[in-house]
Order: sequence, then structure tokens, then C-alpha cells
Amino acid sequence: MDIATLVGLILAIVGIIGGNVLEGGNPAALINLPGFMIVILGSLGATMISQPLDRMIGLPKTLISAFLGAKGHDEPATVDLFVTMADKARREGLLALEADVDKIHDEFTRKGVQLMIDGTDPELLRQIMEIDAESTKHRAEGGAQVLEFMGGIAPTIGVLGAVLGLMGVMTHLTEPEKIGPGIATAFVATFYGVFTANVLWLPLAKKLTNNMKHEQHSLNLVIEGLMSIQSGDNPRIVREKLEGFLAPGQRQSKKGDAEGAGAKEAA
Amino acid sequence: MDIATLVGLILAIVGIIGGNVLEGGNPAALINLPGFMIVILGSLGATMISQPLDRMIGLPKTLISAFLGAKGHDEPATVDLFVTMADKARREGLLALEADVDKIHDEFTRKGVQLMIDGTDPELLRQIMEIDAESTKHRAEGGAQVLEFMGGIAPTIGVLGAVLGLMGVMTHLTEPEKIGPGIATAFVATFYGVFTANVLWLPLAKKLTNNMKHEQHSLNLVIEGLMSIQSGDNPRIVREKLEGFLAPGQRQSKKGDAEGAGAKEAA
Amino acid sequence: MDIATLVGLILAIVGIIGGNVLEGGNPAALINLPGFMIVILGSLGATMISQPLDRMIGLPKTLISAFLGAKGHDEPATVDLFVTMADKARREGLLALEADVDKIHDEFTRKGVQLMIDGTDPELLRQIMEIDAESTKHRAEGGAQVLEFMGGIAPTIGVLGAVLGLMGVMTHLTEPEKIGPGIATAFVATFYGVFTANVLWLPLAKKLTNNMKHEQHSLNLVIEGLMSIQSGDNPRIVREKLEGFLAPGQRQSKKGDAEGAGAKEAA
Amino acid sequence: MDIATLVGLILAIVGIIGGNVLEGGNPAALINLPGFMIVILGSLGATMISQPLDRMIGLPKTLISAFLGAKGHDEPATVDLFVTMADKARREGLLALEADVDKIHDEFTRKGVQLMIDGTDPELLRQIMEIDAESTKHRAEGGAQVLEFMGGIAPTIGVLGAVLGLMGVMTHLTEPEKIGPGIATAFVATFYGVFTANVLWLPLAKKLTNNMKHEQHSLNLVIEGLMSIQSGDNPRIVREKLEGFLAPGQRQSKKGDAEGAGAKEAA
Amino acid sequence: MDIATLVGLILAIVGIIGGNVLEGGNPAALINLPGFMIVILGSLGATMISQPLDRMIGLPKTLISAFLGAKGHDEPATVDLFVTMADKARREGLLALEADVDKIHDEFTRKGVQLMIDGTDPELLRQIMEIDAESTKHRAEGGAQVLEFMGGIAPTIGVLGAVLGLMGVMTHLTEPEKIGPGIATAFVATFYGVFTANVLWLPLAKKLTNNMKHEQHSLNLVIEGLMSIQSGDNPRIVREKLEGFLAPGQRQSKKGDAEGAGAKEAA
Repeated sequence: MDIATLVGLILAIVGIIGGNVLEGGNPAALINLPGFMIVILGSLGATMISQPLDRMIGLPKTLISAFLGAKGHDEPATVDLFVTMADKARREGLLALEADVDKIHDEFTRKGVQLMIDGTDPELLRQIMEIDAESTKHRAEGGAQVLEFMGGIAPTIGVLGAVLGLMGVMTHLTEPEKIGPGIATAFVATFYGVFTANVLWLPLAKKLTNNMKHEQHSLNLVIEGLMSIQSGDNPRIVREKLEGFLAPGQRQSKKGDAEGAGAKEAA
Repeated sequence: MDIATLVGLILAIVGIIGGNVLEGGNPAALINLPGFMIVILGSLGATMISQPLDRMIGLPKTLISAFLGAKGHDEPATVDLFVTMADKARREGLLALEADVDKIHDEFTRKGVQLMIDGTDPELLRQIMEIDAESTKHRAEGGAQVLEFMGGIAPTIGVLGAVLGLMGVMTHLTEPEKIGPGIATAFVATFYGVFTANVLWLPLAKKLTNNMKHEQHSLNLVIEGLMSIQSGDNPRIVREKLEGFLAPGQRQSKKGDAEGAGAKEAA
Repeated sequence: MDIATLVGLILAIVGIIGGNVLEGGNPAALINLPGFMIVILGSLGATMISQPLDRMIGLPKTLISAFLGAKGHDEPATVDLFVTMADKARREGLLALEADVDKIHDEFTRKGVQLMIDGTDPELLRQIMEIDAESTKHRAEGGAQVLEFMGGIAPTIGVLGAVLGLMGVMTHLTEPEKIGPGIATAFVATFYGVFTANVLWLPLAKKLTNNMKHEQHSLNLVIEGLMSIQSGDNPRIVREKLEGFLAPGQRQSKKGDAEGAGAKEAA
Repeated sequence: MDIATLVGLILAIVGIIGGNVLEGGNPAALINLPGFMIVILGSLGATMISQPLDRMIGLPKTLISAFLGAKGHDEPATVDLFVTMADKARREGLLALEADVDKIHDEFTRKGVQLMIDGTDPELLRQIMEIDAESTKHRAEGGAQVLEFMGGIAPTIGVLGAVLGLMGVMTHLTEPEKIGPGIATAFVATFYGVFTANVLWLPLAKKLTNNMKHEQHSLNLVIEGLMSIQSGDNPRIVREKLEGFLAPGQRQSKKGDAEGAGAKEAA
Repeated sequence: MDIATLVGLILAIVGIIGGNVLEGGNPAALINLPGFMIVILGSLGATMISQPLDRMIGLPKTLISAFLGAKGHDEPATVDLFVTMADKARREGLLALEADVDKIHDEFTRKGVQLMIDGTDPELLRQIMEIDAESTKHRAEGGAQVLEFMGGIAPTIGVLGAVLGLMGVMTHLTEPEKIGPGIATAFVATFYGVFTANVLWLPLAKKLTNNMKHEQHSLNLVIEGLMSIQSGDNPRIVREKLEGFLAPGQRQSKKGDAEGAGAKEAA
């Protein structure tokens, strides 16, 4: 559960609506069916034109995943897993890893380890894993693209709503008392367009892109780990290499030198 | 038939025009010949300046293809085809595929398989297929570029129309009753510019780009499949490799392990 | 002669000025010397600051080339030329091509063929030709960049003109009858900025970029053709490879299989 | 301590607020709680939606590091260090560097030298160091991205505040004396949005990006130095190569030719 | 001396100020201290936040270099130099070039030739020269980036000034005779922001980028020339290769075939 998405949304709404109330605005003025129809249906429709049908159908799922957060990858644990496997592989051979395959929860890692045990050629193994990672990225980008397009188009659809509203106002220009409220109504469409784009679609698209990048980072760690074990690197080198993927605070090699030294001797 | 394009277009029109009617607007006010001439002819003309003649002539065809959807590539079926061919090639040799070439419907795949049977060098085969894929991409991007340019230019041509309209209004500033309707007319040009750009040209350009990317994805699958068969990979590896291109739900290797195991034994 | 540029320009002017006349506007109001000085001299001056002197001097030539169209490359004929040369080279050796060099009209192709006959090392030949192609691209991009910069800057210079105009108007705010026409004059600068940018500079820059890409496509075809002959590919492979550069409708290998088969036998 | 950040901030505030005071403005009018809530909470909330939680928590630290400046890398000293090590390594062997490892303050350099002494394969050493440098870059980009997103979104949130404010004004349009101050209040939100984006978030994001690029430049120097020593380059070549990373004024090889000549003889 | 920068600046000022005078504007209205403080100090301060201190200190030097033009590289002469050196090197050996090193004025070329004579490994020589060229590019981009950032930020700081000015106006809305001049003053800030960005900072940044690209083109010519001589290419090939970097009109090989033929014989 990615609490930042929810907290951020609440914070933004409290700030914007709260600030409006504080300056004497009436939030009820923000509820306006014609504006809603123009901006929400309009930008949804335009986005639907731009995207394959299955991505539009997957939109609710995409939104939920933006709130639930990135698929959990415990990177330090993955590093430990690869160091342990490297150790075992050097002592007992790659086939000895067969017993541990079922204990690997992450599907991508399991697939890679299985292929490695089956004696797949290193270059081929890298290719297979990279095609898979690339495909995952491709799908994740698709979801982000829907929201990005909607975020790019919503403010201009809001302007469209404002123009339509102002056109209505202009025909009553000789009746000054009708102008003010009319313009207010016209502004609601602008509000909807700017609000949905900048508080919903664009931040959510960015979150999905950030999650995707984070996942790719983890997948690269797995691929490098597989390559390292397969080329027979000693466990200390595997750790040294893979910990490059971790934040400095997550690295173990500095703290516990004992294990590193032990691995060194074993080599 | 890509139903999303049509449904999206209807949704956007219902939302925008419907919302306008709901707030008391008169859709007839949106019909305005001078605004139409300025925005549509103006942006069409500017786009024609920017593009080679044959792309402009191909514009109606481009628009139709955006509504009809991407050239159908049944990717799971393509994977099955390559696994079957890999199996046959390992048992009976590459020449045995000669009999099946005519059954391949997709022209790109057929060309590749024919070249492979003819004993084309792998590096050369990859080159020929990539040049072809690149050329397909180049043409598809051309079509999308026309719409993208039109989408980029239409709103500013709309502004041009508004400026011209307002200049007319300004010369009558001492006759207040003429101002309102005059401004309304001037706004129609803005409406045309923003509407055509954001509801038609840009979403359609994006759809074409998405279709193009999808097709390139399929062409890459075919190229990797050819390379894999030619390098003598066993059918299980071919499936493992190519299924990386599929969405997880479309993959067979997890569901039916029997076939995979059978292929493994055969190897 | 690239008729699209001229037709597009006429279409855009007819649409924009025609639409203005139709709604009762007076095109004479668009002739305004101060606005012209501010926008045209201003954006020309700013562009001159940004560019090397020789590019500014070459600007009229650049504009003419945007109207005259891309340097003609008859790509199907180039493919035929390379297939014929490949055939001759395989029968009689590379030196036999010496007799045909002078018949090649395109300078780039002729240089490449001459170097090939001289026995230049393939890697070196590719390098020389790529440096030349890159240099051609570099010069073409320079021309497009001048127009692109001018197109990017013209609307804001137009805004500058409007601001200056409105500042004049504001000092007469207590004389309402002077406001309207004053604002109209101020708007002319906006019109000049938006019109020149979106109907002239940006579309013409795009045309030059499109022409440049088209030419690079042709140069790549020539380079691949040279490489293919030099590596001794048989004529059928040369055709197969180079036709990847052509649009499907221009390809010969599907239509006349007889020649392809003959070439195959010859191989 | 990067004094430019602080001096720049003071300069900008003095210019903007001072200019306002000079033209008779009242800076107190810029203090407005509703506007502050809308813009600051609104853009902070939207940014929080877009980012992983740990980056938001790290935001204060990120801001401080933008003021304190880039992690100090004394590049000429690093070059000297590598030249000295190259000299020692050629005379006494790589293992002789063991004694100096602890004197290296920079953690990245120390890790690389230690791995080199341990006899890590050059290709592997490069890989490990590049993964580490890439990871550092990845984290630094994360911090810059938070500020960049906030800078991109703040002005539109300011517009949102202005729209909300103007909607309030419009409902009082028949009471002219309430319009002016109301609009002023509405403008404060625009001010907050444009000011925070252009004077705080975007410049600070750029500073972080510049610091990151500078650090990557230093890390590349270290990697090239390690590679150069490991491949047994003589000290003069090491200096020649690494001084390419320095600004011309920092280079030693031109000034003191004596040392260079000495190193040459030693080689 | 790059006369285009100065002429462009004069042209832009004559156009903009002249146009303003022609339509009855008073250029004195453009002199406004508060507006100047807000826009110039504001955008300078914001830029200083975004950049390392040494780049800000180098700003005057950067501006001067934009007016003085690119560091002169006489590319045809450089080609001649390399052809002559290639000829000498083939006749008398690389060491014979020692006598000519001091006659080479360009420091980059001299460094490269010296390293070549010293017998530096070709791959290493390329690396050293590319690191140096990359470093030169890095520094030049730094200077351009300062101006680019300032150009990006100045118009919005101008808007900030306008907002502050209009806020002052709004508090006097019931005194109509104060509105007009007040708005005029507020507009000056917009003028400063748009003018400095589009007539000064952005064009000058572009000029620096163009100069940098031109210099990189020359440095690449030198690197290719060194590689070509070191790999023992005959002088005709060296000319053929390096003239690819020249504009067609600067090439010698077409005009004077005599020398080319002579070189051919010598080979």
C-alpha cells in the first residue's frame, strides 16, 4: 500500500478546497453538471480515441495500482538470495540450486534461475530475461500513457468549456446582472480541467512511471545477479556488484566485514 | 475494427455538445462559416506546406486506418507458429519448412521464413528484416506526423481567427450592443481550433503512433523467432523467448506444462 | 518542384483572409507598418543573433529550396542500378564497373562506386560515406534551424508588439473612442507573429526537415547497396535488401518473380 | 557551502519585493493565507501523489543539499593521486597500493582501488563501478525530480487559485467596489504559483541536476583512472588522459613539463 | 568577430523600438526602474540559484564570446595539413612529423599529433582526444545553459512583475483615471521579460550552442585525421575522408584532380 498517493490526494484537496472556503468561497459552486460533462466526458472520449481499447478497459485497474503502490521488491533480500545462491553454486554446482527454485516467490527471478539451472547459454539467458523485462516495461508505460494523455488534454478541454460558457454569456451582455454568475459557471470548466489534470492525471501518471522505473531497477538487479552467478563470480564479488544497485544505507558489505572476509577466503 | 476510436469520438461529442446544451447554450452558434474557413482551411494549408504531397493525398486513408485499427497481428498464434516450425526444423531440417511457407498469411513473416529456407546468412537475414521493419515504421510515422502537425497548429490558427474577429469588434466599440455577439463569433474560431486539435488530430495521431508501436512489437517478435530457429534453439527455448513478448495472461508455458515438458524431452 | 508548399500556402491564405472578409473584416486593417517593423525586423534580428552569418545569408536559398522540393532521388531506379551492378560485379569483377561510373548522375553514388572500384576497404568505405551523409544532414539541419528558431520567436515578438501597442492605448484610457481602434492596431502585431510563425516559418522548417530525412533515407539506401555489392551478395539478395527501403507498391520482387528466379539460378 | 544558491535567492527576493515596494506596492498584500493554502498545500499534495514516499520524506534533506552545494570532488588532486598510484604500480606492482588505500578519503575511489588490488578482472571492475555510479545518479535524479514536478505544477495550481478567487468576485459583480480588492486577492495565488516555481523549485531542481552531472563527471574520471592503471599505462599517459577531464586552467602537463618529462623517462 | 550577433541585435532594437515610435509610442515609457529591478534582478537571482558559482562569474566572458564568435577553425586548411602530414608520414615515417609539431597553432591538433608521434596506441589516442573534446563540449554547454535558463525564466518573472503591478492597480479601481497609466507601468515588466528572453538570452544561448557544435565538428575532423594517418591511409584516402566534413564548395578533390592523382601514384 503506497500511502503517499492517498495522503497527497487528501492534502491537495484540503489545501485547495480549504483555501477556497477560507477566502469565503462556496465549494458548492464547484458542483456543476454541464462543466463536468464537458470536461470529464470530453477528455475521457478524446483519450479513448487515442488509445487501444484494452488499455481503456484496464484504466480502473491502472488507477488502483497507482494507489496500491509498486509491486514489492525487497532489493536487499534479493541481493542476499543471489549471494547465497552464488555460494551454493560454487560449492555444489549450479544443479544444486534446483532444490531452492520453488522457494523463490518472485516469478521473474524464478524463471531466470530455472533457465540457468537448465544450462541455458548465458547470452541467450540474458536475451530471454531482457525481452521479458522490456515487455513488462512496455505494458506499464501503456497504463501511464493513458493518464498522461488525459492530463495533457484535460486543461484544453476545460478551456473549451470556458469558451462555450463565455459564448453563452456574451449573448446576454446587455443584461449586466446575468454576466457575473454566467462567467462563474464558465470558470468551473476551467477549474475541472486544471484540477483533474494537475492533481489527478499527471501526478498519477508520474507515480506509475516512477513505479515502473523502480521495478525495472529491480529486474536489472536480478539479471545482473543471474549473469554473475552463471559466470562463476565468487560470492563476495556478487555482493559487491549487486550492492551497487542498493542505496548506501542498505548495503551490507561495509557493516559486516566478517562475512565478506569469509567469502574472500572461500574464493 | 477498432471500436475505441468511434466510441471515444461519440463520447467526446456527447459530453461537450451535451454539456453546452445543458447549460443553455445553443449548438447552432457553433456553426459559423468564416470560423470554419479560417481554422480548417488555414490549418490544412499550413500542414500541406510542411509535408510531402503524397502524405497529404494519403491523409483520408490515414484517417480511415486510425478508425479501423491496427493491422491484426495475433501474437500468441505467431508464437505457436514459430514453436511448431522450430520443432519441425530440428527434426527434419530447415528445408522441410518449404512446404508450410504458403500457409503463412503475414507477408513479413513469410518473407523472413522464405529467406531462412534459402539459407540466407543469419546476420544478413536480420539486416534485411530490420530494414523492412524500419521502413514500415518510417511510413507509419509519416501518417501520424501529418495529424500531429495539424494538431499542433490548429489552436494557434484558432487564436488567429479570434484576433481577426476581435479586431472587427474593436472598430465598433462605441456601439455596445454589437460587442457581445461579435465576441461570440470570434470565440467560435477558438472553439474550432481547440476542438479539432484536442478531440480529433492529436488523439488520432496518438492512436496511429500506438498502432505503429504495436506493429513494431509484433515485427520484433517475428525477427527474434526467425533468429531463434536459425540458431537451432530447441522449441522450448523458442517458446520461452517469444512468450516474453506476450502479456502474462497470453503465455502458455505456465498453464500447459505438459507440452513444454514434451518439447524438453524432444530436445 | 514541390507543388504542396505552394498550394498549401495559397489554401492557408485563402482560408484565413477569405474567412475574415466573409465575417465583414477589412483585410486592409492587416496592413500596418509599425506592427510589421516590430514583428518582422524583431524576429529576423533575434534570429540573426542566434545563427552563424552564413546561414542568414543562405536564408533566401533555403526558402527557395523549401518551395522547389527535395533533391530528386528516384529510389526504385537506384535499387535497379545496384542490382545491375551487383550482377555485373559477380560475373566480371568489381573493376568491370569502371566503365559505368560516369553514367551515374548522383554525385554521392558515383563517389561511393568509384571508391569501391579503387579497392577501398569496406569498413573505410562505409566510414567515408557516412561522414559525407552526416555532413549533408548537418548542413540541411542548419537551414531548418533558422526557420524553426524564427517560428519559435515570432509569436512572442508579436506579443511584445501587442504590449507596446496596449501601453499606448492605456495612456488614453479616459478617451474611450480612442481605445477600440488602438487595440485593433495592437492586435495586428499578434496577428503578424502568429501568422508568420504558424503559416510560414514552422511549416517551412518542417518541410525542410522532412526533405532532409527523405534524402538521408536515400543516402542510406546507397550505402547499404555499396556494402552489399562489396561483400559479394548475389543480385537477388541485393534486391531483397534494398527493396526494404521502398514503399511496398514500389517493390519489384513480388510482381516479376521471373527475374528474381533468374538471379537465384545465377547465384 | 555553495554560496551561489543563497546569494541568488537573496538577489531574487530583493529584486522582486524591492521593485514592488519602489512602485508603491505593499508587500503585506502578498501575505494571504487562503492563497498560501491553495498553492503550497495543493502543489505539495499533487507532488506527493506523483512520488514514492521516501523521496517526499527526503525532501528537506534534498533542499539542504541544494544549498550546501555538490559533494566536494577536488578533481586536480584526484588526477595527481592516480598519477602517483600509476607510478607506484609500475615500479612495485599493484599490490604495493594496499598501503595507501586507507588514505583515500573518497569512498567511491577507495572501493575501486581495493577491488583493483584484489585482482578483479578489468571488465568486471568497470561494471561494478559503473553500476555504482549509475545508482548514485538514479538517487540524485530522484531528488531533482520532486522539485521539478513541483515547479511544473505550481503555476497551474496558482491559476486554480486565481480561478477560484475570480469565481468569488464574479458573484459580486454588481457591487463594483468589491471587485478590485477581490481580484487582488485572487492574483496572490498566481503570484505564489509563479514565484515558488520560478524562483524556488525549478532553479533548485536545476542546481541539483548540475551537481549530479558534476559528480558523475568526477566518478567517470575515477573509473577511467582505474582502467588506465590496471591496463598498465605509464604515468604520463595517465596524466594526459585524465587531464582531459579538467578545465584547461587546472591542467598541469603544460605548466610543469619537468615532471612530465621525468615520468616519460621513467617509462 | 561574429558580425551577425551585433547586426542582429541592432536590427531587432531598430525594429521593435522604431515600430513603437512610428505608432506614436514613447520609448521613454519603457524606462522603469521597478520593472527593471523585478525582471533583471529577479531572473538573474533565480538563474544564480540554478547554477554553480563559477558559471555565474564566467557569465560576462560567456556573453563576450557570443559576440566575438566561434574560435576560428579553418577547416579546409586543417584538411590540407592532415593530407600533407599523411604524405610525409608514409614517406619518412611518423617520427618525421616531430619537426612540424611546433608549427601547428591549434592546441588540440598539436596535442594529438604529439601523442601520435610518441607512439600512443590508436585506441588510447582516440580515447584521450575524445575525453578532451567531450570536456570542451561540457564547458561550452555550461555557458549556454546559464543563458538558456535565464531565457526560460525571464518571461514568467515578467508576468510576476505584471501581477504585482496589477495588484497595485486593483486597489485603486474606483479611481478610473489612475487605472490606465498603472496598467501601462505593469506592462513594462512583461515587456522586459519577453524582450530580454527572446531578443537577448535565448538567441545568445542558441549562438553559443551553434558555436559549440561547429567546434565539435572541427574537433571530430581532427580526431578522424589522426586516426587515418595512424592507420597508414594513403593521402588520397585521407583527403577523401576528411573532405566529407567540409561543405561541397570547400572541397578540393573535385577541382584539382592533379594533386589527387599525384597522391594516388605516390600510394
